[in-house]
Amino acid sequence: MPADAVERFDTVDLIRAKRDHGEMSTAEIDWLIDAYTRGYVADEQMAALAMAILLNGMTRREIRDLTLAMIASGERMSFADLGKPTVDKHSTGGVGDKITLPLAPLVASFGVAVPQLSGRGLGHTGGTLDKLESIPGWRAALTNDEMFAQLREIGPVICAAGSGLAPADKKLYALRDTTGTVEAIPLIASSIMSKKIAEGTSALVLDVKFGSGAFMTDISRARELARTMVDLGRDAGVSTSALLTDMNIPLGLAIGNANEVRESVEVLAGGGPADVVELTLELAREMLRLAGQPDADVAGALADGRAMDAWRAMIRAQGGDPNAPLPTPQETHTVVAERSGTLVQQDALPFGIAAWRLGAGRARQQDPVHHAAGIDLHVKPGETVAAGQPLFTLGADDDTRFERALDALDGAYRVGEPDEYTPRTSIVVDRIA
Amino acid sequence: MPADAVERFDTVDLIRAKRDHGEMSTAEIDWLIDAYTRGYVADEQMAALAMAILLNGMTRREIRDLTLAMIASGERMSFADLGKPTVDKHSTGGVGDKITLPLAPLVASFGVAVPQLSGRGLGHTGGTLDKLESIPGWRAALTNDEMFAQLREIGPVICAAGSGLAPADKKLYALRDTTGTVEAIPLIASSIMSKKIAEGTSALVLDVKFGSGAFMTDISRARELARTMVDLGRDAGVSTSALLTDMNIPLGLAIGNANEVRESVEVLAGGGPADVVELTLELAREMLRLAGQPDADVAGALADGRAMDAWRAMIRAQGGDPNAPLPTPQETHTVVAERSGTLVQQDALPFGIAAWRLGAGRARQQDPVHHAAGIDLHVKPGETVAAGQPLFTLGADDDTRFERALDALDGAYRVGEPDEYTPRTSIVVDRIA
Repeated sequence: MPADAVERFDTVDLIRAKRDHGEMSTAEIDWLIDAYTRGYVADEQMAALAMAILLNGMTRREIRDLTLAMIASGERMSFADLGKPTVDKHSTGGVGDKITLPLAPLVASFGVAVPQLSGRGLGHTGGTLDKLESIPGWRAALTNDEMFAQLREIGPVICAAGSGLAPADKKLYALRDTTGTVEAIPLIASSIMSKKIAEGTSALVLDVKFGSGAFMTDISRARELARTMVDLGRDAGVSTSALLTDMNIPLGLAIGNANEVRESVEVLAGGGPADVVELTLELAREMLRLAGQPDADVAGALADGRAMDAWRAMIRAQGGDPNAPLPTPQETHTVVAERSGTLVQQDALPFGIAAWRLGAGRARQQDPVHHAAGIDLHVKPGETVAAGQPLFTLGADDDTRFERALDALDGAYRVGEPDEYTPRTSIVVDRIA
Repeated sequence: MPADAVERFDTVDLIRAKRDHGEMSTAEIDWLIDAYTRGYVADEQMAALAMAILLNGMTRREIRDLTLAMIASGERMSFADLGKPTVDKHSTGGVGDKITLPLAPLVASFGVAVPQLSGRGLGHTGGTLDKLESIPGWRAALTNDEMFAQLREIGPVICAAGSGLAPADKKLYALRDTTGTVEAIPLIASSIMSKKIAEGTSALVLDVKFGSGAFMTDISRARELARTMVDLGRDAGVSTSALLTDMNIPLGLAIGNANEVRESVEVLAGGGPADVVELTLELAREMLRLAGQPDADVAGALADGRAMDAWRAMIRAQGGDPNAPLPTPQETHTVVAERSGTLVQQDALPFGIAAWRLGAGRARQQDPVHHAAGIDLHVKPGETVAAGQPLFTLGADDDTRFERALDALDGAYRVGEPDEYTPRTSIVVDRIA
């Protein structure tokens, strides 16, 4: 292989090894990620390898090496000089998942720094930055100095992860998205954890979702992902735990961008849908436990306005006006119940896809998001409805989008008899630490 | 997926289907190959799909659809107007496999047209065109008119396949080579058969090799490949059969380019190594059987010079001088036996890799081939040697190449006791029709 003589390894040999159920050495993984970042290993080679990893798996040692190699591809930050504990939350993504918005100010109101370095949405699960950008003036891009000052003085920051953190992961993530290799547990785990470890947080709570609206529809695969990520965090010296949470039905009543901000503000004002409040409180308790405050009265901080104060300060610090009206859709279309009964079905995935088709998400990274587009649910599973009562309202900037959104919703919801509905006991089904 | 709205299918959906052990429809496969040829489906997407196909397989119907879609990506030729039968041979490739060189003129000497549209080598198995280009003046590129005239007037043609035949396959083949996805039976079978069917031959004999120097080391996988290709040929109306042949040891005594031409001329002159002669005759009998001459005296045509006449006419017709001396290497290095005994081991793959490292092959498509580089074997397995007797000679244009070639040969050959050697009964182990 004369052409590879200056390189330490042959790319095709590495792909073949993984393809044939072999293991890659630490040196091979280090080289691979470095060579991919440099552009020596081509996208098509990494895509073939990613598919082999998805189908054949990786050992715990390989996953750790991959994560460390992706961290080494870029800069590392440290919050050690802040003078207060830092704790971060990461969700694997779901339909209507706006929890970061009320959660970051809530936790920060206890004197903890919450650096939420977030991304934009791709696919049907929206991005936190896209949601916040529906607030007039708010900006996602902060310099490191601005971020540190905000963490020190206010506490919560939700901003775009700098391009210097784990650049190998950024490249690989974009590739996986177009090559059907998103769902590989070793790649999901190393992608998430490389960014979180490089970011320098001292503690991390993972919200690992399962169900129709999650990456992992299957709870056992979600548990495996959670276990893998908690192990990676521990190995890297980050206090890490995970909650396994139910994503079979949309979270809350709002699916979109501006309407999810609106719902988050309701929660911060002490109201909001019960499931959003429950998950926000559970995650806040877990984050504060890792930050050394196991007995923090998180419900009290929602009730007495401390969390709302932190929210308003955070939005203002990033140029946003917390009092400005949020955009509303040009066109709406409301679907009503055809019969009286109980709402027995409301599948997360089709509602996510429908919101995406309405313009709330993007199909390609360069596409814009329509901030006013989305779905407002009027009824949650288990609630009774009368014939003709509104079930949900679609919103979009042009009404030609309704047809394909309604196609996605065909068979996704159903009004039936009360005994057809089995209530779930809790949104959080397990804690992995 | 708004961005894909003008396309009939979503690429990621197709990749996922194959990844999750699903089946692609005829319409999906047709679209995929067309969209890949157009560049809408990206290399990294096709690479991920190729790996999923390699690991999860394809049904017979999918393989046939893939083959037909690749044929449809380009032009189709027809030899119907030639006024004589056409028969073609394809080898899956091996170390020292120069059989096309004596075979095409031998078969053509019976009044049959033999259109051998060939390729260049990539990896350790050399290309037929590379070998012939060591003949001064010989040119691989013919116009269609030149090719038809030569088929009509002389009979044998060995030339470069025009770029118009199955362009989708050309693109996919180059991709597979760099992505560790060469070894997928559905992709090998459709690649070979799409070109052969598009070329328009009426009959085709496949030399499907197994053993250390072949694509398929395992005989059962070679048999599966042979069965798949014979079925594809039949389905497309081409008389097709396959011989399963042993590629555990190099074929003949010459591995390289110019030295393989030299050995081919020895066979055409009635001499040459026994295994090369045996395989040439077996393939010639099979080709002539398909062309309606089951009793052709192929050994006679080698003995009486008819095959040699056809060779010389073929070389001349393509600008070559059959009398010109062939290039010899600048530097040589001979390895001798360290002890007396029987040569009990001579592994094809390491000898192929060594010849490649000497310069006989190329690592990248744009690399040149050193025509004089290669290996001359002096002893074949089962033969006795005395200590100090030459076993093989490496040849290269510069002596810095010997070290890496010798590295490849470490453990690849061994002189031992006579009872350690088990002779093979025949190079052809089965016929599949």
